[in-house]
Amino acid sequence: MSKVGVIMGSDSDLPIMQEAIDILKDFNIEVEVDIVSAHRTPEKLFDYSKNAHTRGIKAIVAGAGGAAHLPGMVASLSPLPVIGVPVKSRNSIDGWDSILSILQMPGGVPVATVALNGAKNAGILAAQIIGASDQSILNKIIAYKEELKLKVEIASKKVRK
Amino acid sequence: MSKVGVIMGSDSDLPIMQEAIDILKDFNIEVEVDIVSAHRTPEKLFDYSKNAHTRGIKAIVAGAGGAAHLPGMVASLSPLPVIGVPVKSRNSIDGWDSILSILQMPGGVPVATVALNGAKNAGILAAQIIGASDQSILNKIIAYKEELKLKVEIASKKVRK
Amino acid sequence: MSKVGVIMGSDSDLPIMQEAIDILKDFNIEVEVDIVSAHRTPEKLFDYSKNAHTRGIKAIVAGAGGAAHLPGMVASLSPLPVIGVPVKSRNSIDGWDSILSILQMPGGVPVATVALNGAKNAGILAAQIIGASDQSILNKIIAYKEELKLKVEIASKKVRK
Amino acid sequence: MSKVGVIMGSDSDLPIMQEAIDILKDFNIEVEVDIVSAHRTPEKLFDYSKNAHTRGIKAIVAGAGGAAHLPGMVASLSPLPVIGVPVKSRNSIDGWDSILSILQMPGGVPVATVALNGAKNAGILAAQIIGASDQSILNKIIAYKEELKLKVEIASKKVRK
Amino acid sequence: MSKVGVIMGSDSDLPIMQEAIDILKDFNIEVEVDIVSAHRTPEKLFDYSKNAHTRGIKAIVAGAGGAAHLPGMVASLSPLPVIGVPVKSRNSIDGWDSILSILQMPGGVPVATVALNGAKNAGILAAQIIGASDQSILNKIIAYKEELKLKVEIASKKVRK
Amino acid sequence: MSKVGVIMGSDSDLPIMQEAIDILKDFNIEVEVDIVSAHRTPEKLFDYSKNAHTRGIKAIVAGAGGAAHLPGMVASLSPLPVIGVPVKSRNSIDGWDSILSILQMPGGVPVATVALNGAKNAGILAAQIIGASDQSILNKIIAYKEELKLKVEIASKKVRK
Amino acid sequence: MSKVGVIMGSDSDLPIMQEAIDILKDFNIEVEVDIVSAHRTPEKLFDYSKNAHTRGIKAIVAGAGGAAHLPGMVASLSPLPVIGVPVKSRNSIDGWDSILSILQMPGGVPVATVALNGAKNAGILAAQIIGASDQSILNKIIAYKEELKLKVEIASKKVRK
Amino acid sequence: MSKVGVIMGSDSDLPIMQEAIDILKDFNIEVEVDIVSAHRTPEKLFDYSKNAHTRGIKAIVAGAGGAAHLPGMVASLSPLPVIGVPVKSRNSIDGWDSILSILQMPGGVPVATVALNGAKNAGILAAQIIGASDQSILNKIIAYKEELKLKVEIASKKVRK
Repeated sequence: MSKVGVIMGSDSDLPIMQEAIDILKDFNIEVEVDIVSAHRTPEKLFDYSKNAHTRGIKAIVAGAGGAAHLPGMVASLSPLPVIGVPVKSRNSIDGWDSILSILQMPGGVPVATVALNGAKNAGILAAQIIGASDQSILNKIIAYKEELKLKVEIASKKVRK
Repeated sequence: MSKVGVIMGSDSDLPIMQEAIDILKDFNIEVEVDIVSAHRTPEKLFDYSKNAHTRGIKAIVAGAGGAAHLPGMVASLSPLPVIGVPVKSRNSIDGWDSILSILQMPGGVPVATVALNGAKNAGILAAQIIGASDQSILNKIIAYKEELKLKVEIASKKVRK
Repeated sequence: MSKVGVIMGSDSDLPIMQEAIDILKDFNIEVEVDIVSAHRTPEKLFDYSKNAHTRGIKAIVAGAGGAAHLPGMVASLSPLPVIGVPVKSRNSIDGWDSILSILQMPGGVPVATVALNGAKNAGILAAQIIGASDQSILNKIIAYKEELKLKVEIASKKVRK
Repeated sequence: MSKVGVIMGSDSDLPIMQEAIDILKDFNIEVEVDIVSAHRTPEKLFDYSKNAHTRGIKAIVAGAGGAAHLPGMVASLSPLPVIGVPVKSRNSIDGWDSILSILQMPGGVPVATVALNGAKNAGILAAQIIGASDQSILNKIIAYKEELKLKVEIASKKVRK
Repeated sequence: MSKVGVIMGSDSDLPIMQEAIDILKDFNIEVEVDIVSAHRTPEKLFDYSKNAHTRGIKAIVAGAGGAAHLPGMVASLSPLPVIGVPVKSRNSIDGWDSILSILQMPGGVPVATVALNGAKNAGILAAQIIGASDQSILNKIIAYKEELKLKVEIASKKVRK
Repeated sequence: MSKVGVIMGSDSDLPIMQEAIDILKDFNIEVEVDIVSAHRTPEKLFDYSKNAHTRGIKAIVAGAGGAAHLPGMVASLSPLPVIGVPVKSRNSIDGWDSILSILQMPGGVPVATVALNGAKNAGILAAQIIGASDQSILNKIIAYKEELKLKVEIASKKVRK
Repeated sequence: MSKVGVIMGSDSDLPIMQEAIDILKDFNIEVEVDIVSAHRTPEKLFDYSKNAHTRGIKAIVAGAGGAAHLPGMVASLSPLPVIGVPVKSRNSIDGWDSILSILQMPGGVPVATVALNGAKNAGILAAQIIGASDQSILNKIIAYKEELKLKVEIASKKVRK
Repeated sequence: MSKVGVIMGSDSDLPIMQEAIDILKDFNIEVEVDIVSAHRTPEKLFDYSKNAHTRGIKAIVAGAGGAAHLPGMVASLSPLPVIGVPVKSRNSIDGWDSILSILQMPGGVPVATVALNGAKNAGILAAQIIGASDQSILNKIIAYKEELKLKVEIASKKVRK
């Protein structure tokens, strides 16, 4: 069965990254969560990245703050699509550091970057990647978009009164 | 067969976006190229986005500059994973406008953003998305990474002399 | 009678956008308020934008945050002048994302952008647009400017003491 | 007959501002062009702004670079809608100075700001303001948008081959 | 006797600008305080700027926030040295708007800009301008600098323990 | 007789700083030019700053690029008003480094900062400082402003044709 | 015995700079703490910088905020490696001012800059400099890195449950 | 004998990084140059970083552009002081990406960052690190600073004429 790996550089990133885990579970996609620090556990980073695709993981969601090297280093080592979540950490310069450290990857090694603290969207993107070859997940994405629409329509009704 | 859609807001974006097309062809992935402008052909944007997934497209690469709305609007209308390429256009404010217009999508509607002018990486990411369920493409990604390594090793030998 | 449409991407924008509604009512201009999300209700966006000018609306004020595509997409679909209000939303990068997403529109599709959270000024601008062909509104604008002056003069008197 | 005033802080802004003049002439709207410098001809700024609405001008397009005070000062003195064009001048800090000096007006005194060097869009916006009460101009705007679409369709055909 | 004019765009700037007034009074320099808004009281701005140098004012300290046009417009109209204080107002974009609106004046019309919210330094600068031709003020500046040194030395002693 | 000191961190700053020298000579003010590097000749910086006011210098114009410490260090050591010119040097980050290094001085030690590469305005400001107590210089400033106006009027005539 | 000098521009920087002192003490390295203000005690800055290397200090950690000239001026006067800590002070522009004032030193006069408020890392860097020639300190650095790893592993275990 | 390792992410960084090599050779310090790409040769990055300190290298200078992960990843794996050079690469966002990716390292893993393209200063810093325990290198640093002074004095003489 298809799985998504959700990793983060520190447990302080968990409150943000939980949104990725939650939405993937809502889509009934199996999630494997771990802490992998590019700067403090580089060996684990290597092992994780080299092997993730061999045990059914189809996409990796990686969140990190500051000079955020985790998503890019995973992308360097794994053939899987890597989704990077820039986390606005303490002492961050308004989030610019994590955004640019994740987004501006050199040619050959992409990271699919989402918005600052955008873990929910990272989860949806991982689901869409699985959905590209799994019609049942694709249908869930379509249904999810209908729900978004419905919520706006309810808010619209209130405001127009 | 799996296809990737590569679209852009204007033909002036083609020199940049060509790198996505070329790398996808290198991976032997079928590419469907078109110009779709969010601001000048909104109806076409609707038709394209609503239907892309029904004709075998598995991922959409969308490039645009300035207040770049194309990737986000496609993501709003299509259930497929959308990869956004911020293009540094004439009169851009150093590229910040296209980066932020593509990256900072609201919760529920992700765009997988790559680096400024990073069309090549967008192409690789699209290939990785197909590779998530297609072992032959995954193998090509793995081989591609080996080639990158080789090129560095050749440069390394020259420099050490 | 001339009307102004005030729309926003989410009901969380209402506290900011209310200032546009209030000042327009102060000028005795009819306001039609709604929630229209570019990313979650794209079909409604189309209907709204295509038809607004046919039912007496003379200008559209559109507020949105983050990768704010609402004002630009309305401008793409409607022949009316569109005034964009960059809203500083949660997880915004200090407001830069919404400012640049609204301001940096490509040639051919203008959005009249006001200051960050500047909904009051958006309302005044809409009134000035109506005032361009309606002398009674123009007179109200002139009177409004006199009021601004008076308030400064009262503050000036206090400070000089 | 309705007129639009197009002013700029220096004749070095003319190559940019010419695009506003040209598009307005394309729409058959009368244009009155002048150089008015907030910092070097403040008295003329006063006269111009106080009187423009009394001689048939319906909207003022004002372009300036650097610490660009012209659009805001005109807006302070005239009841007309003022459209500000941030011009990227020599020694500008990438255009940020003129953008922020024009955009971030205080509550009560709006300037309708367009993109950096976006004089063409300023001209279209002025036409839309006149079109709000002049059906023939509104029709021209609608026709203009059709032309934009056509150009994209031609480019699209070329690219798809 | 030499005087310094301290003006600000709004009474909400007073808590910041008070530091300029206080330090000038510490130096025994006469201060004339007023509210002059470039955008809401443009006529007063003209009168004030045209006449300040005729009643003994030797330097003008002008504070304003957002698209801060007050210091530059005073500099345009008065032959006196004008010191600009960028005030970080509500809805400011981190102060960048007021800094750039005050700092980036065109050739011919300087504003002596101090740090964000740096009203105290503006007051000292005004005192130094008077001190350039008034030995007793110059001596006070020299004594003031000695005091600054003393305070650091006391803090240094504490820290070294 | 009143003199102005014009110093710069490197002879590569001279093409920019020459504009300060030229305008001061136009005002018939004596100028003393030198190279003083905060980072390479710190002892000279000390001597220069400690003694400038004792030999008739009334204001110091100091230009520097990058992490520009010259203006602030002179201000720390001299009781005179110091005018800082941020120079956009090679490898500068768009000028932001020199602007912020000069502008953001701590309370107690002001530097009168002008625009990026704004040496001409620094010269005018120095003249205004002398003019604060020298009516003949003040009159020259007034005449200079009239000239600025005249030039705009000539350009205005051309454009209106 | 090898010592590290830790200095700061103001005692308000102490809460941040204490992290450098603490980590150095954890490594059993002697620390000499003082307040040295580039702008308020320039003579002390000279004495300190000229003599530090003569009394066993091997590296200097210097923290400062705003237009932070302390690290660069020490580097100009001392032959020792200088580590600069950009401190985010009150009225700082999000820390950009201190970062750029410390980082962007001209060729010939380096400052080893660490992250915003990164005093802990400055302390570790000073230890690494001593460790470059002192095997016992190098071993402590190696042990310290093992500890970092261990903490991540404990957090990882919790999260995986 | 003490050595310095100079590495870079790509041979396109060599023109910049050569300045580090040259200045180290001027100081008669042995240099070991190589290309090590964090993203394309991650295994080599591991080997290099784990072993550099075992073969006499005392400091590592690492240059990289864009999302520059090389310096931080080396710092994660090596106990040596690591000096990071942000290189302004093609498609860089004005250098901000490499600066923030190198500078904003998390607590525990410092990188000594120098100015954008500041390879020369990185070389000097490496020499200073060796000089901290090697009096002959320290003396060369002192002599080097005297040379810098001399060059300014020669330029000063020319300018004063």
